[in-house]
Amino acid sequence: MTGQFDIERVIAALKSVIPADKMPVALHEPWLCGNERVYLNDCLDSTYVSYVGQYVDRFEAMLVEFTGVKKAVAVVNGTAALHVALKLAGVEPGDEVLTPALTFIATANAVTYCGAIPHFVDSEERTLGLDPFKLRDYLKDITTANTSNCINKYTGRRIKAVIPTHTFGHPVDLDPLEDICDKYNITMVEDAAEALGSYYKGKHTGNCGKLSILSFNGNKTITTGGGGAIITNDENLGKLAKHLTSTAKIPHRWEYRHDAIGYNYRLPSINAALGCAQMEQLPGFLEKKRDLAVRYNSAFQNIAGIQFFTEPLHSTSNYWLNVLLLDEANPEQRDKLLEKTNDEGIMTRPAWTLLHKLAMFQNCPCMDLSCAANLEARLINIPSSPNLISR
Amino acid sequence: MTGQFDIERVIAALKSVIPADKMPVALHEPWLCGNERVYLNDCLDSTYVSYVGQYVDRFEAMLVEFTGVKKAVAVVNGTAALHVALKLAGVEPGDEVLTPALTFIATANAVTYCGAIPHFVDSEERTLGLDPFKLRDYLKDITTANTSNCINKYTGRRIKAVIPTHTFGHPVDLDPLEDICDKYNITMVEDAAEALGSYYKGKHTGNCGKLSILSFNGNKTITTGGGGAIITNDENLGKLAKHLTSTAKIPHRWEYRHDAIGYNYRLPSINAALGCAQMEQLPGFLEKKRDLAVRYNSAFQNIAGIQFFTEPLHSTSNYWLNVLLLDEANPEQRDKLLEKTNDEGIMTRPAWTLLHKLAMFQNCPCMDLSCAANLEARLINIPSSPNLISR
Repeated sequence: MTGQFDIERVIAALKSVIPADKMPVALHEPWLCGNERVYLNDCLDSTYVSYVGQYVDRFEAMLVEFTGVKKAVAVVNGTAALHVALKLAGVEPGDEVLTPALTFIATANAVTYCGAIPHFVDSEERTLGLDPFKLRDYLKDITTANTSNCINKYTGRRIKAVIPTHTFGHPVDLDPLEDICDKYNITMVEDAAEALGSYYKGKHTGNCGKLSILSFNGNKTITTGGGGAIITNDENLGKLAKHLTSTAKIPHRWEYRHDAIGYNYRLPSINAALGCAQMEQLPGFLEKKRDLAVRYNSAFQNIAGIQFFTEPLHSTSNYWLNVLLLDEANPEQRDKLLEKTNDEGIMTRPAWTLLHKLAMFQNCPCMDLSCAANLEARLINIPSSPNLISR
Repeated sequence: MTGQFDIERVIAALKSVIPADKMPVALHEPWLCGNERVYLNDCLDSTYVSYVGQYVDRFEAMLVEFTGVKKAVAVVNGTAALHVALKLAGVEPGDEVLTPALTFIATANAVTYCGAIPHFVDSEERTLGLDPFKLRDYLKDITTANTSNCINKYTGRRIKAVIPTHTFGHPVDLDPLEDICDKYNITMVEDAAEALGSYYKGKHTGNCGKLSILSFNGNKTITTGGGGAIITNDENLGKLAKHLTSTAKIPHRWEYRHDAIGYNYRLPSINAALGCAQMEQLPGFLEKKRDLAVRYNSAFQNIAGIQFFTEPLHSTSNYWLNVLLLDEANPEQRDKLLEKTNDEGIMTRPAWTLLHKLAMFQNCPCMDLSCAANLEARLINIPSSPNLISR
């Protein structure tokens, strides 16, 4: 039958790539094989385990160097980073923010922390991310022309920002999206939570947004236990991000005065110490992850009904979580494969439930989401840790 | 001159308590003399450095055991803990929340994160905390009788909650405050950020509020780098706190569905591992901190114009940050003492600037704050680390 695939052949292909001694295998786990112990013990020796000390500065400098942005601000996680990035992008209560429907819930949650409303956008199959061409046609239909702000004529609300999420590490097509942002006066905030080590046309992701964010959660390419960062090429916004993610205290030898409502999202030193050790290993992790993707791609070449997803043109992806796509939407077969692989100790998962289906977001505005719905029904993530490739 | 003190005598008294080999001396620094290295290295060995693993559960169990509450939920810091505690106390946008004017800004910031408005309350000299008797008289004046909600008749807004902060570790007089809460249908959320190891009438602080919070910042009695906890005797609220401080995911083997907007405030395992080692040492830290207070008290017995603050009756305090009170409000002499001590390597600081004086809060409602203003002009914190007492 067209579009059907043989589950046993899929599992055999996975096992041909995943070393037997790694079973059972997680989706993505931390690999702590560098200076983690050295830096953590040094951090303890210094007693500067909290918000003072060298490791946060060092970690931020390493992020700046690696991504090529002008300023990085380390925070407790990617959600917190996105919250403050949206604030600094000028998102205000009652605004709408364009976000993909096919993304992790943190993207939409951060919008709500600003008192704003997520407005869900469809994805495109070639990137798994937000479809800029479909968005362009949609905005033409729903916005009123000739205003300095972009106003949704159906809700009367301002559309202030757009959050392209680089899904599973694969870069969104940013150039056409940037054109739309320019034309409609919409601010771009790149959600590169999954995309440390991913490049769009030779530039590291996060360089195109007015502000962008990274995540260093335990399941990400590098980890700080929990952590994230705001990155930006606007040095003033970077300084403000540093101020607002602290308690916004005015520097003084002893006085306690604050000039804004801060969010206290600072990353502690011990987490940054872990991050410094991980950043040193990032190039090696990326090499191994891309090597793993090559092996998966080859193993799935001749399996009918299912394909391994490869990076979009014009991009170099970190292949954060590797993706299999069923040829046809077949939730029953997809669930059978999920069940069988997890039973056998190969951790797999489907895409996130589309956000507009969740009770909290079901009344939010959205465009036609047929591509996202189709991807949701066809997509499976498979084990992606760099340590699946032997040294 | 009445109320004047001799700065040289004050410095001599400080130096009679602080060992010479500890100079220059911080206000409060982490003491990492137990199993910190063992647990952190074990945590790294396990690779469970993020949100999965044994240390968060262990840390929460240790907090439950020590404080006597039914449920503790570890989060990234005390500010985050207070945000979610206020949400779960039912604070909604447009509500007013009673908070002391003399407290760290995080208390008022957390109120604003809920879209609510801080309403500033005066302090009393015997506890340095919120004055329940003055508050009782004030509420009688400003609220309308005979409504199930407590309505501020001048603003028309509901007064939903009150946050007694146990200032510098000294417990607020909670019994009369509880009576007020019962009478006016106001929910108490104890801010015990500074009060781990402080007891009110034999019970650990945090047992009286519907929900309460702790902090483990680097300057606190114990530290997790950065960290905090929501504690409560209501097991259902405790479960909800755990859910809302995560991403509110519905447990499932692979599906990603969420039933609420969560805040992703989870404490990572590596921070909890540090916390477990610190909790083991807490009784020793408290003993040393109380011993230090005894020494300061004795050193300042015969110094005219200034007094060492001792714990309120009916309470046992952790003496988080030790306090000197000038007999009379004399900002000029206070600042001279701050300058001279800091110049000599003895870190001191004044109280926080009263919150209603900050631009962000200057339009918030407040009662007469004369006692808080008087305390602000007279108060100095002096070095308080447990390691100032030799073993």
